[in-house]
Amino acid sequence: MYKELNTSTRILMGPGPSDAHPRVLKAMSTPLIGHLDPEFVTIMDEVKTMVQETFITKNHLTFVVSAPGSAGMETCLVNLLEPGDEAIICINGVFGGRMADIAERCGATVHKIEKEWGTVVSPEDIKKALDKCPKPKLVALVHAETSTGALQPLKEISDLVHNAGGLLMVDAVTSYCGMELQVDDWDIDAIYTGTQKCLSAPPGLSPVSFSDRAVKALENRKTKVQSWFLDLSLVKNYWGGAKRAYHHTAPVSSVYALRESLRIVLEEGLENRWKRHQEVHHVLKTKLESLGFRYLVEEQYRLPNLNSVFLPEGNDEALIRSKLLNDYNIEVGGGLGAFAGKIWRIGIMGESCTLNHVNMLISALEDIKEFKN
Amino acid sequence: MYKELNTSTRILMGPGPSDAHPRVLKAMSTPLIGHLDPEFVTIMDEVKTMVQETFITKNHLTFVVSAPGSAGMETCLVNLLEPGDEAIICINGVFGGRMADIAERCGATVHKIEKEWGTVVSPEDIKKALDKCPKPKLVALVHAETSTGALQPLKEISDLVHNAGGLLMVDAVTSYCGMELQVDDWDIDAIYTGTQKCLSAPPGLSPVSFSDRAVKALENRKTKVQSWFLDLSLVKNYWGGAKRAYHHTAPVSSVYALRESLRIVLEEGLENRWKRHQEVHHVLKTKLESLGFRYLVEEQYRLPNLNSVFLPEGNDEALIRSKLLNDYNIEVGGGLGAFAGKIWRIGIMGESCTLNHVNMLISALEDIKEFKN
Repeated sequence: MYKELNTSTRILMGPGPSDAHPRVLKAMSTPLIGHLDPEFVTIMDEVKTMVQETFITKNHLTFVVSAPGSAGMETCLVNLLEPGDEAIICINGVFGGRMADIAERCGATVHKIEKEWGTVVSPEDIKKALDKCPKPKLVALVHAETSTGALQPLKEISDLVHNAGGLLMVDAVTSYCGMELQVDDWDIDAIYTGTQKCLSAPPGLSPVSFSDRAVKALENRKTKVQSWFLDLSLVKNYWGGAKRAYHHTAPVSSVYALRESLRIVLEEGLENRWKRHQEVHHVLKTKLESLGFRYLVEEQYRLPNLNSVFLPEGNDEALIRSKLLNDYNIEVGGGLGAFAGKIWRIGIMGESCTLNHVNMLISALEDIKEFKN
Repeated sequence: MYKELNTSTRILMGPGPSDAHPRVLKAMSTPLIGHLDPEFVTIMDEVKTMVQETFITKNHLTFVVSAPGSAGMETCLVNLLEPGDEAIICINGVFGGRMADIAERCGATVHKIEKEWGTVVSPEDIKKALDKCPKPKLVALVHAETSTGALQPLKEISDLVHNAGGLLMVDAVTSYCGMELQVDDWDIDAIYTGTQKCLSAPPGLSPVSFSDRAVKALENRKTKVQSWFLDLSLVKNYWGGAKRAYHHTAPVSSVYALRESLRIVLEEGLENRWKRHQEVHHVLKTKLESLGFRYLVEEQYRLPNLNSVFLPEGNDEALIRSKLLNDYNIEVGGGLGAFAGKIWRIGIMGESCTLNHVNMLISALEDIKEFKN
């Protein structure tokens, strides 16, 4: 009744997942070992160190949440916020909105900085928000907004947040391992990411990291964290400490894959990897513009790896997108929210960031007779 | 610096994960497709139907939480409980205790039925608790307590709970696909399980199911669910409904593996699978007892697939257990809580439930010269 798994060989150029490296897929099929096996503890230690290296941080409290990026977001917020706290949440796309929703569920008073989708938050915006809420417990921003393709500068804002005594929380789901991201240098207090973007591992895990300042805030909580599964005071004894305490059963195979994807990133080198994403982006950009595509985001704030573009006039985006998928096996992403039906989100992330990927997409568009450029 | 993944070939006979079937491992290494790809939507539909078949339920709200069993537990509790609710939680091991902890974090008033570890909860215990709390929103029990190896009868208790107008919530992490479990027939309102026990898939996902009665309780909530990631009012639009709404990025590879493990279960047939676990258990039991092991749990309440046993007198359990792991690559589990250092938990689950597994373990014990029988 249920047949053997038989999926099409997709070329993944949407907002994630990206194509996985064969080495990562192979690692996934390694026979299981126990989640408390000394060999698995060594693997967790290695993964932790590699996550520290890729976040460019010495943060001791660095580990991997056993669930996708959204759960990483929730881990940061439920641990750092409690009823009575004030938070400033910057919203310029889907994921800022999600952070505000979660922060409100934590009982915090949320001050929203709402910006037009596709734009970024300026230091001036932060200053204005701090005038109204001078002592926020936390200020949260999205480094790379996957719904719009906007890249948020962080360094100047970091100083403003810390001068006000707040914690800086950052969503780095789409930027991690694809563009410059400096957790210690930019003084980020809480950060989460996903595995299925520029890391090119399967989706399902969320690397996170917390500064000593954030750890102090955790220790000073007056109430229990509302989530047991995401409570750092419990999880940290599983991912660190002298004696590993059982918390939950770690997703062994996904950790194998994460380990292999991190090895691949470090073999390439972070800076080389950032450069590759920039270079392939420039080729893609030139070719897309020559076909009549127009970028949503102003050039200086554009993500290299997630290209949000309006189609040339007169195209039925859903039709062309389904032709790309069905006739060429190429996945690109549609728009979200107000941009649904209006833009495409073209991802060139990790293993999907090659000249061949760009050429496959551009050539397919040139082939499709309904595509009007 | 970080070498190729090179794990030992373990024989997994602990409390989970169990050995995965090669077909499941192979499915994990299938190249990724997008989590909103029409092909993936079909896979999700198939997985949902197979989860309904294996839970033996027609419950419409049946799906898979994108995180391990503990997150499935939290999904049930955060959705069904809100501040002001009263819950009766039965505790006869680690996992009942965890349910009580989470229920308190939901703001519910928790009435605990605490029983000695290794025993089960009787209908009389439930009646007594209902005398003190006659109108509970929810009564929660662990069907198969992984920390002790006790099997909780449910049918009679189910009637008591429903006569009091409560919802029956059940932890089936260790029983699912290894012994009789009838969600509709036993009138269970909320159930969660894991993938890494008798299903023999990698850990990381949690199949769950909710009765119409539970769905009504969800619809009648006065407050928002405190977790965004686990909020069923959002997740259900991703796993069902006419148009799939993006919620989070599903763990594509883990869903591939889950699908394959469910196919294998249905090929064998649920009843054949339950019978196999019973038969192998009887062989294991006879051989363990002939070596001087003694069961913790009274015979009628014993789990076939998780054998909690005291070692024969005079054995250093940690030493023997490490010899099994290091010299024979066989993993058995140690005790938890009060039973740490005192019992072993020997799992024969799914692919680890074969006569060869039993013989490997028994022969290794006979070999180990420090083992005193």
